[in-house]
Amino acid sequence: MSKTIQEHGWTAVPRSLEKLVASRKDKKPSAPVSVEDIAIPDSPLVQDIVKYAKENLSSETFNHSMRVYYYGQAITTQHFPEWRYSPETYLLTALLHDIGTTTKNQSSTRLSFEFQGGYISLDLLKSLKAELEQAEAVCETIIRHQDLGDTGNVTTLTAVTHFATVLDNAGLNAELVHEDTIKSVVAKYPRNGWTGCFAAVVRKECKLKPWANTSRIEGFAEMVEANKLMQPYD
Amino acid sequence: MSKTIQEHGWTAVPRSLEKLVASRKDKKPSAPVSVEDIAIPDSPLVQDIVKYAKENLSSETFNHSMRVYYYGQAITTQHFPEWRYSPETYLLTALLHDIGTTTKNQSSTRLSFEFQGGYISLDLLKSLKAELEQAEAVCETIIRHQDLGDTGNVTTLTAVTHFATVLDNAGLNAELVHEDTIKSVVAKYPRNGWTGCFAAVVRKECKLKPWANTSRIEGFAEMVEANKLMQPYD
Repeated sequence: MSKTIQEHGWTAVPRSLEKLVASRKDKKPSAPVSVEDIAIPDSPLVQDIVKYAKENLSSETFNHSMRVYYYGQAITTQHFPEWRYSPETYLLTALLHDIGTTTKNQSSTRLSFEFQGGYISLDLLKSLKAELEQAEAVCETIIRHQDLGDTGNVTTLTAVTHFATVLDNAGLNAELVHEDTIKSVVAKYPRNGWTGCFAAVVRKECKLKPWANTSRIEGFAEMVEANKLMQPYD
Repeated sequence: MSKTIQEHGWTAVPRSLEKLVASRKDKKPSAPVSVEDIAIPDSPLVQDIVKYAKENLSSETFNHSMRVYYYGQAITTQHFPEWRYSPETYLLTALLHDIGTTTKNQSSTRLSFEFQGGYISLDLLKSLKAELEQAEAVCETIIRHQDLGDTGNVTTLTAVTHFATVLDNAGLNAELVHEDTIKSVVAKYPRNGWTGCFAAVVRKECKLKPWANTSRIEGFAEMVEANKLMQPYD
């Protein structure tokens, strides 16, 4: 397998989170891990995107994006160690996956926010001279990051993003992350009412754009609001 | 409802083709209509995109794109007359919806072909000074044009594209188009073995890009090859 494919997560895995959880080679319980033990890439490209994300995302969405990074890395390391993607590519994905939800971006287009976000991210990363394979990997995942379902495949980068986002947003697949890991992550990147924030984003998307891709997830805002796992930290 | 929304199909309808078929106000049988009776827009923008499509698409894919236009117009006029979108916007969508499947475009990216096609089309239409609302309507549909499912909503432009593509590619919802309409359309834009062509495109996409969005449709190549409705014309 070429280095490019390994680096940027261009390996197909089943889209079904249920199948992925069931197919784990080693179904051991999650062990606690602290944020200090999860490496954060710090290349010039990452620095540029962190700066961009901080300037454009609300602070709540920035914190969510960082939690998505940490949860994803904890999940993959412990439960899917055979998956290959560079932490840099995943961090870029985490930082940009909700770029379509900023007030400016959500309201300046009729495109579903994931599609707008994917294209903004592709153009941004290309302009910063990211490898095309990396920019496209991030774009593909952002476009599909709410496309959960039972059939077909996704990239490993998309799969880890699915696991991490539905954990943070809806408390799903809680067995994949130890409670103490969650405590460590939210201590560094607090939720500050993320549940209410994100439910509002979902409702706004469906109100502004009733045709939007988000509408595929029936009862999504209510599902987000019922996130019992994260309630103590909200 | 603003003229922009009406013109470019930015109205939400259920994504489920089954629900749409069942919800028709007037469930009368399809009447035959000839291609000569279906208006073809001929603006400068359309002329540019027809030229672009002819230069870039294979002749089989170009013919498929034109059949998608005619079938879609026949279906909407007879079964969903309350849907509003301009024939120009739908023709642009039909001509560009498979632009991601050209040899050059399919092989020069790791993005799922629908996402590449949507991106290419958005940039192309913007460069030709199309209204943003029109360029985005085409883009949104191209990204979602294989995204059939039971939940949520899509634009009317996407819904008509779904009906027309699955009719031409897999012979689905045959009751929506009269047999004589099919005969008239294929006489003007012959299939020339489209069944085999498109099955090959599907297989190539899934082979080059096992993570691709196309993989969500289980047994798709086989479904295309089993297209009995269009077999007499293939």
